[in-house]
Amino acid sequence: MAVRGSFARLLHQAGSPLLVPRKLSHSVAIIGAPFSRGQKKRGVDHGPEVIRNAGLVGKLSSMGCQVYDFGDLSFTPVPNDELYNNLVKYPRSVGLASQLLADAVNGALAAGHSCITIGGDHSLALGSISGHARQYPHLSVIWVDAHADINTPLTSQSRNLHGQPVSFLLRELQDKVPLLPGFSWLKPCLSSSDIVYIGLRDVDPAEHYILKNYGIQYFSMRHIDDLGIQKVMEKTFDHLLGRGPRPIHLSFDIDAFDPSLAPATGTRVLGGLTYREGMYISEEIHNTGLLSAMDLVEVNPFLGASQEEVNATAGLAVDVIATSFGQTREGAHIVFENLPTPNSPDESENEEQVRL
Amino acid sequence: MAVRGSFARLLHQAGSPLLVPRKLSHSVAIIGAPFSRGQKKRGVDHGPEVIRNAGLVGKLSSMGCQVYDFGDLSFTPVPNDELYNNLVKYPRSVGLASQLLADAVNGALAAGHSCITIGGDHSLALGSISGHARQYPHLSVIWVDAHADINTPLTSQSRNLHGQPVSFLLRELQDKVPLLPGFSWLKPCLSSSDIVYIGLRDVDPAEHYILKNYGIQYFSMRHIDDLGIQKVMEKTFDHLLGRGPRPIHLSFDIDAFDPSLAPATGTRVLGGLTYREGMYISEEIHNTGLLSAMDLVEVNPFLGASQEEVNATAGLAVDVIATSFGQTREGAHIVFENLPTPNSPDESENEEQVRL
Amino acid sequence: MAVRGSFARLLHQAGSPLLVPRKLSHSVAIIGAPFSRGQKKRGVDHGPEVIRNAGLVGKLSSMGCQVYDFGDLSFTPVPNDELYNNLVKYPRSVGLASQLLADAVNGALAAGHSCITIGGDHSLALGSISGHARQYPHLSVIWVDAHADINTPLTSQSRNLHGQPVSFLLRELQDKVPLLPGFSWLKPCLSSSDIVYIGLRDVDPAEHYILKNYGIQYFSMRHIDDLGIQKVMEKTFDHLLGRGPRPIHLSFDIDAFDPSLAPATGTRVLGGLTYREGMYISEEIHNTGLLSAMDLVEVNPFLGASQEEVNATAGLAVDVIATSFGQTREGAHIVFENLPTPNSPDESENEEQVRL
Repeated sequence: MAVRGSFARLLHQAGSPLLVPRKLSHSVAIIGAPFSRGQKKRGVDHGPEVIRNAGLVGKLSSMGCQVYDFGDLSFTPVPNDELYNNLVKYPRSVGLASQLLADAVNGALAAGHSCITIGGDHSLALGSISGHARQYPHLSVIWVDAHADINTPLTSQSRNLHGQPVSFLLRELQDKVPLLPGFSWLKPCLSSSDIVYIGLRDVDPAEHYILKNYGIQYFSMRHIDDLGIQKVMEKTFDHLLGRGPRPIHLSFDIDAFDPSLAPATGTRVLGGLTYREGMYISEEIHNTGLLSAMDLVEVNPFLGASQEEVNATAGLAVDVIATSFGQTREGAHIVFENLPTPNSPDESENEEQVRL
Repeated sequence: MAVRGSFARLLHQAGSPLLVPRKLSHSVAIIGAPFSRGQKKRGVDHGPEVIRNAGLVGKLSSMGCQVYDFGDLSFTPVPNDELYNNLVKYPRSVGLASQLLADAVNGALAAGHSCITIGGDHSLALGSISGHARQYPHLSVIWVDAHADINTPLTSQSRNLHGQPVSFLLRELQDKVPLLPGFSWLKPCLSSSDIVYIGLRDVDPAEHYILKNYGIQYFSMRHIDDLGIQKVMEKTFDHLLGRGPRPIHLSFDIDAFDPSLAPATGTRVLGGLTYREGMYISEEIHNTGLLSAMDLVEVNPFLGASQEEVNATAGLAVDVIATSFGQTREGAHIVFENLPTPNSPDESENEEQVRL
Repeated sequence: MAVRGSFARLLHQAGSPLLVPRKLSHSVAIIGAPFSRGQKKRGVDHGPEVIRNAGLVGKLSSMGCQVYDFGDLSFTPVPNDELYNNLVKYPRSVGLASQLLADAVNGALAAGHSCITIGGDHSLALGSISGHARQYPHLSVIWVDAHADINTPLTSQSRNLHGQPVSFLLRELQDKVPLLPGFSWLKPCLSSSDIVYIGLRDVDPAEHYILKNYGIQYFSMRHIDDLGIQKVMEKTFDHLLGRGPRPIHLSFDIDAFDPSLAPATGTRVLGGLTYREGMYISEEIHNTGLLSAMDLVEVNPFLGASQEEVNATAGLAVDVIATSFGQTREGAHIVFENLPTPNSPDESENEEQVRL
């Protein structure tokens, strides 16, 4: 009940040289990225706050992780950045924030931590993936999202950068992407074979053109209905890891879930992942032993219709993160020699000692 | 990720003679059938209104369909029709309305449109299927519903005709069905092998007897749980289309969905289709290229506990229809040669031209 | 679409000697067990009342069962039982109540009934399974629950006995379980190969140790996501019935369902069974013909946020029980020779006679 397919066979081959440490550290860094300029709805910059309030640090600690909460990054507003050339909104703000985040993620990984970025909108993946790639140039990306976020500035209808980050990261698309102010630091670090999408169900025509013509592997909700989530994960790992283990970056947009589960987010689309599918994805990624950084983005507490909705969405975010780092539904135990045995028939003594 | 099985193999055989045009027209007619006499709850005659208000025409148009909205049919009340022989309620009203609808559907198909009937209660399928059969005598029917609607007037406990239309349409059952006033125009146009049910979960004993003894193919929710919706669709197409392509009539009762998704309907039954299963069914039917007419029935705005419930139910109806006519979760694009390319490094000009 | 796998093959072998009657009686006894001392939340002792009010007896009767409602057992409070040795809460109360229930279940089965225990908290399974084992020593147990309920008094963190009953029932664990006051009547009646868990998703470390080290077969929600519920049931029957038919005890904790379906219960855990999975489990167990006793526990009307939540939870309990005893989604009919046929073209006479 674990990783299968050709990647599994490869992992189990004796003596296969590993390019990354098999068991990544259980020392995890949390970086808050309260950023919202990649889209137009207020509130997503409060995402880190509500995800922390939902108990992220406590849960990770209780699982045995060493947690280093680096707090929130502080983003300086950039003046006169509303709309660049009638083409893109807030490019300097997004560029600067992502640059800051890239440095922070790079630093956390260099210090030996796994790294969790809590957003904030999805334009931040520009930074987290770039920072990750500085440490691990051969990284792979699993992008869980209702949307492909792969418009170029020339194809986007909304002009919001949170719908475009992947186009800036893919080497093959660079002749299609104009230079933007604030983006000069950014070097594309992925090839189109390095990323797999899961959960898509609202794909623009130009995005569909890109996915198909650049041979990008994606699993829409239709594919999940067709194959089942198990087979989707197996194919995902075969695609990304079939030729050998590589670090995984998980970029998880909470809107991948069905809106009934994650209502407090900006671009809800019906027919999303179930809770169980989300946990299954996270469990499978954890079980590879290759997750080195992840994003959890687009939790927007201003968009919940009630406090219950906000809490449910933030709690879901915590469950995705915790499960990606080892929380399990089948149970787990740290190896011990044997069960406590009663010392006397009625166990009137010593119970403090034997209680686990 | 498309049609499979023996029907798929047949479709792909070079030179196989097609009995119907492979790509049916994207010209679609909408016929409103605000009729409620097939059952006893008020409000289902407002179904066409709320389905239109939920954006049906706009969505189909935005997908590239040529939409011809024929408006609502006008049904004349028939006096003294409450109960015929203590056997059937409102037979003359149902017979007359269905006759009118049959003419309208026949006319729309003759004019080269695909035809969408929005109800109204499910007794209307008497008319839409009869009208469809006049144009395409070899049609097949996919009936998506929590109920089999195949009682005869002699087995029905409720005496409501919306639970009986299929018994009037099947040739094999005609010696079991009494002549009713208002039904003399109706000729059975289906054999028991021409229909497949999907979604059943509340089947009366006499209905079960009929399904079993007349060899009718049906997939209850238990069968869907057992096989998965993919296999169910594959078996559906093999059964209906295994010997060659034929026009498909989709008769979709909104109560096939789980009541949590479609609360505003008259006969809710727990444990129904998920949103994703409903979309998958519709996608698969669209992908055959053989859908020529469909019904969407039993949306009753009076039975929603709130405006939200009504909107959710009507929106679901729109999604079923739009998906049956080509809306897709995996994305789609009209073929174009290449992506827009920046003219200058900062793309300061020409962006109107290149924007898709 | 029925029982499969090696158990199915065995069942279908001509002349295989059966250890239990193949078709168990449709005479069912209902025993109410309004008990709550196995845990700390008030209200679960009102479970039998709300399950009855949700129509249990009427539904079973309408399905053709002969129903004998034995009413509620009456449990005498045991003084000074709050906490024994700082180890276990209310041992004498739980022991006495379970002893009473064991006698009642034994008596009902001896009288030829199938037996339904409606709880009450899950500590009651101590009694119902013990009573069942007196009649059928070779029984098997299917335990449907979010929790494994297999802590020993020495590993439990909560000290509540509703999280421990299985540890008292398994022979292999007896050297790990201290003697408790009130439990001297209890003899372990199961081996670790006699029980299968379905639905687990909140398993304590010590429980995980027990499950793994004693080779107990369990299917967590992750396993269900991985295999699908059909395969899980097939494996369950192969494990329990692979060497021959045996009576089945179904111990169903309502918290196995997702909290969105069963909110009125004491220990909710996200990501539970869907309605359809619960019905599928129950249908498959019914279809073995081997169910002889079942528990339905942990419905707590005090914990619903509204009357609707209480009704939904209790209605779900009724559906699980009714389906376990033959209610079906695919329909059923008692064999009759033929459908009613109209006597005259307009069937103006005799309709009372032919109506089913």
